[in-house]
Amino acid sequence: MRIALAQQNYRIGDINGNTNKILLAVETAKQAGAELILFSELAICGYPPRDLLEFSEFIEACEQALERVRIASNGIGIVVGAPQRNPVKEGKDLFNAAYVFDEQQLVGVAQKTCLPTYDVFDEYRYFEPAWQWSVLPFRGKKLAVTICEDIWNLGDNPLYRQCPLDQLIGQHPDIILNLSASPFDYTHLEDRKAILKQNVQKYKLPMIYCNAVGSQTEIVFDGGSLVMDAQANLIQQLPLFEESIRYVDWKADGRFAQPVLSSAAQLPNAEYSPAALEPEASIVEIHRALVVGIRDYFNKMGFQRAILGSSGGIDSAVTLAIAVEALGKENVRAVLLPSPFSSLHSVADARSLSDRLGNPYDIAPIDKVFESFLSELKPLFADRPFGLAEENMQSRIRGNFLMSIANKFGYILLNTSNKSELATGYGTLYGDMAGGLAVLGDCYKLQVYALARYINREKEIIPNSILTKAPSAELRPNQKDSDSLPDYAVLDPVLYQYIERRQGPEAIVAQGFDRAIVERVIRLVNVNEYKRNQFCPIIRVSPKAFGVGRRMPIVAHYLTEQHTS
Amino acid sequence: MRIALAQQNYRIGDINGNTNKILLAVETAKQAGAELILFSELAICGYPPRDLLEFSEFIEACEQALERVRIASNGIGIVVGAPQRNPVKEGKDLFNAAYVFDEQQLVGVAQKTCLPTYDVFDEYRYFEPAWQWSVLPFRGKKLAVTICEDIWNLGDNPLYRQCPLDQLIGQHPDIILNLSASPFDYTHLEDRKAILKQNVQKYKLPMIYCNAVGSQTEIVFDGGSLVMDAQANLIQQLPLFEESIRYVDWKADGRFAQPVLSSAAQLPNAEYSPAALEPEASIVEIHRALVVGIRDYFNKMGFQRAILGSSGGIDSAVTLAIAVEALGKENVRAVLLPSPFSSLHSVADARSLSDRLGNPYDIAPIDKVFESFLSELKPLFADRPFGLAEENMQSRIRGNFLMSIANKFGYILLNTSNKSELATGYGTLYGDMAGGLAVLGDCYKLQVYALARYINREKEIIPNSILTKAPSAELRPNQKDSDSLPDYAVLDPVLYQYIERRQGPEAIVAQGFDRAIVERVIRLVNVNEYKRNQFCPIIRVSPKAFGVGRRMPIVAHYLTEQHTS
Repeated sequence: MRIALAQQNYRIGDINGNTNKILLAVETAKQAGAELILFSELAICGYPPRDLLEFSEFIEACEQALERVRIASNGIGIVVGAPQRNPVKEGKDLFNAAYVFDEQQLVGVAQKTCLPTYDVFDEYRYFEPAWQWSVLPFRGKKLAVTICEDIWNLGDNPLYRQCPLDQLIGQHPDIILNLSASPFDYTHLEDRKAILKQNVQKYKLPMIYCNAVGSQTEIVFDGGSLVMDAQANLIQQLPLFEESIRYVDWKADGRFAQPVLSSAAQLPNAEYSPAALEPEASIVEIHRALVVGIRDYFNKMGFQRAILGSSGGIDSAVTLAIAVEALGKENVRAVLLPSPFSSLHSVADARSLSDRLGNPYDIAPIDKVFESFLSELKPLFADRPFGLAEENMQSRIRGNFLMSIANKFGYILLNTSNKSELATGYGTLYGDMAGGLAVLGDCYKLQVYALARYINREKEIIPNSILTKAPSAELRPNQKDSDSLPDYAVLDPVLYQYIERRQGPEAIVAQGFDRAIVERVIRLVNVNEYKRNQFCPIIRVSPKAFGVGRRMPIVAHYLTEQHTS
Repeated sequence: MRIALAQQNYRIGDINGNTNKILLAVETAKQAGAELILFSELAICGYPPRDLLEFSEFIEACEQALERVRIASNGIGIVVGAPQRNPVKEGKDLFNAAYVFDEQQLVGVAQKTCLPTYDVFDEYRYFEPAWQWSVLPFRGKKLAVTICEDIWNLGDNPLYRQCPLDQLIGQHPDIILNLSASPFDYTHLEDRKAILKQNVQKYKLPMIYCNAVGSQTEIVFDGGSLVMDAQANLIQQLPLFEESIRYVDWKADGRFAQPVLSSAAQLPNAEYSPAALEPEASIVEIHRALVVGIRDYFNKMGFQRAILGSSGGIDSAVTLAIAVEALGKENVRAVLLPSPFSSLHSVADARSLSDRLGNPYDIAPIDKVFESFLSELKPLFADRPFGLAEENMQSRIRGNFLMSIANKFGYILLNTSNKSELATGYGTLYGDMAGGLAVLGDCYKLQVYALARYINREKEIIPNSILTKAPSAELRPNQKDSDSLPDYAVLDPVLYQYIERRQGPEAIVAQGFDRAIVERVIRLVNVNEYKRNQFCPIIRVSPKAFGVGRRMPIVAHYLTEQHTS
């Protein structure tokens, strides 16, 4: 039996477009002689559909699309993810379901059991977990159809109370199918192979895992769909970050015709959960996820061109280089916005960067507008000394320049803030915090340097002087980041413990960090929640990014006496 | 038996402060001869604690606070809400629990069964639902202790699969206690009495309902704690929006010594769920919730003073009047920021408003700065005609003026956007969408007018000319809202159907609205999700506010072909 895996990139809510794409893959698979084709979780509506699921007409549109899929199943079995209404008036209205069609008949529907409701996931908001489990018959075989987290409930994972495969195994399935929408983060690639291996070894069944690909605003789905035989040997692996259709031939003896890509022994065993921040770890995949994240955001928004402020610093340099790779050099416009406090080398470095990348750039000094602001506000400010207000003012003038150009010519403004500064509130609301998409917002400063070194791996694209100078916001004379923040070599590991690993202050101090620094850093993170609450989506590359996946109170008094503006 | 209800305002995460407040009420109740005192849901840590619950040290701090409460329970029973660790390594780590102490002993713990995971609620993200139910013995009586939504699972409410009182009733409790953190919205006051009545009539038991009070950023808890006898007569009702301790005397015969405030027959029966937008409905309570929402946000942030841009329009006028009531006239600074397109009456009306309110105001024209922007950007803009970019530019200059003054003097900027313009994207990011708290962001334009009429109920505080002139952003010559948007009398009801009632386009058209308008309005709402995603917290007064309670995809293709900037 030839089985196709369709690893596709869907648009959320574009039910007709997604269904057209699904039906195209069905036709391709038919021509290739496939008897069965798998799609990913909630493929019909795109994942995550969020509160669109609360609209009855939205569910009806999904039902109509499923009818088109049913009709297309002449000669081929189709397994596709879509929401399903819960017929019982108890619990949530919907199931997260996998429909199996064959020869224009509905073979059956499997409901998801393990509903992730943590980090970016909100599935219990919409879905009722499965309460009954049946293998689905298909051409003489029995399919154990599962959805994403259904296979993550092994061993000591306490997140879910039910394990659907434990329920199904007594019905003697021949194969496990899994429809996923499993996002990238830099710990997840190894993780995923390990969890498949663990399932296959436990149940002694072959397994086909079909993942979504492409980014949905902040979440990047990385594909990498997998096929394992019952001995946990890797038989097929679809590419990362790209759409693809691939096939395996499943033989009557339960084995696959294709050669083994990696033996079970070569595959990882345990979860990869780094105890410490390793800036260089997985930087290749992070870089690729950022490129895909930008490209897909623009595609799905219907925009082609980006604009950003190029300061001569490392963050805007790395953002620019990645954006050029994602969108093409002609589609990324850099604007240099020197203020009276900008150093000469900043402008020179920013020009040199764009000269190397070949992207268009402009220089638009903000000093005259800044003077005009100071002069108009003088009656109100009187003789108060220069301070934070005047620093933020410059940053907001830049934000207005960039947004004005973006509005005039039809660009999306890329934000260049990194995770370390977002964490500590070292940025200006409506100034350097402006933008439609934050490229580096889930990368600590040390990771931004690692990205710069990776971008320069073959030649010096980002001028070395940008990598070696001391970081500065250049909003007052001789300002340095280190005036306001601990060294990044200390700051970033403390942030990592607090944010990614959710360690409290005592636990972090017990790891050997200085208590005063730990308490100061945690306080900075907490009191700046109000700024991040107004921030744009951040391309998520870590297991805990700021944004929808981290929900902290804006006004909280845990370790924080008072809010600072 | 004298029973105390402590309706208190907690600070999220301020575990020591909250516990001090709880212990103070315990002492007060002891002096008043009470034998039992009730506090609200998660009183120890404040509600909603969100991802603070994911920190082990946070839970430890709650446990230490409970130890202080236990010790204080000499001579009095205490029922208090706090998180509890789940001892079973299956399911979520925590329960949302109610602890009962008496004579320095732990009598027992009740766990919440019905975990709300919709709108602003995320309880299943953290908590495991109860799977066992026991009445708790207290001085010869049996208490059925429930938490908030535990009593909302009656009749045809399909949200929850278990009804804890159905489990408890066989154990013959003498009274139902309910610890709540139930937020205000304009449908909820009547609702709450109806649900209590329904429970009491079903189980034929008296009931004591203790709610939290005070705002937590966007959510306003309105108090209004209740006591009903077994005949569903109202015996005690604590004030709305205010802290309070009150007592009832529960007699051996199961009745209360206090007189009946309202008989069961006088109490509402059914849920109040308006089918249409009624701008005047509950405007008194909405006004009060907004006053409390501002006051408490500033209190908890540790700020005293607000600033806002006063345009001479209805939105800023109503915001200013409410802010003056919340913070005092001396603590609210209005800034008039006329541009070249501001009409004379705008400045006159804004001055007249502040003259009547008595709050300080400044006039800071933005025309010189605007000219400076235009002149500096001329090399880039060349001869492109005046358009949206120049309109937004003015709005962002105003945002920068306001934030600069706020940063210089220590104000929080109040945002004046209404729900109609937030819905349709009729506002400028980083311009009039700037601010730390949105006062009117959950009030449609028609409700803003109703608020203005209410504010003027005794005398003309808001000049009548502000109520009667046509709404305008005044960013180009002779601009009117009606150039860009349908009339509010049509727009607001369509928005209400789409947002509050989650009706799809066909359902709204079927109600008699014009199809072209419905599709245009829904498209505007969808494509402007990216703007609202960067918006500040909105004081929630409706059952569906923008913000944490409404989670729509930022890039979705349901009824929207393309994003507009």
